[in-house]
Amino acid sequence: MSRFTVEVLVTPRPGLLDPQGKAIHHALSSLGYDAVDDVRVGKAIYLEVSAATSQAAAERVEEMCRKLLANPVTEDFRVTAAATGAGS
Amino acid sequence: MSRFTVEVLVTPRPGLLDPQGKAIHHALSSLGYDAVDDVRVGKAIYLEVSAATSQAAAERVEEMCRKLLANPVTEDFRVTAAATGAGS
Repeated sequence: MSRFTVEVLVTPRPGLLDPQGKAIHHALSSLGYDAVDDVRVGKAIYLEVSAATSQAAAERVEEMCRKLLANPVTEDFRVTAAATGAGS
Repeated sequence: MSRFTVEVLVTPRPGLLDPQGKAIHHALSSLGYDAVDDVRVGKAIYLEVSAATSQAAAERVEEMCRKLLANPVTEDFRVTAAATGAGS
């Protein structure tokens, strides 16, 4: 078994309201950053996972996303696995 | 000026307490996912920025990170810019 760092990016679906993004957009405008047209805020989740291959680790985490990490009605997610070194 | 989508990943610094990550780790264990050794949760922020080059867009957003988007004491950030097509 090796150990993998799996990155999960959970983002609000296009078209859905994103109040946190709106708030940041507004704050950036107040600070004078006019070149920003839109802001969307999601979650970046990093999991240390033991698995035989990075493929297996990613598949396992995709299952976790569907069950817990993301809301499939309002959010999209993207999973990327990278090795972090030999494990147990 | 072109339009760029700039991705900002804000993560809690290593060693600092991450209660949200702990809660997710605990929930995953309850669901039977024992292969997960650690979970860290940060923010994924996507900004639509008008700029001359992707380099300029990324530099501008790094400035926003230092001023507003990230807390330099407790968080690290990573900025990546990608073109999204011709703008105004």
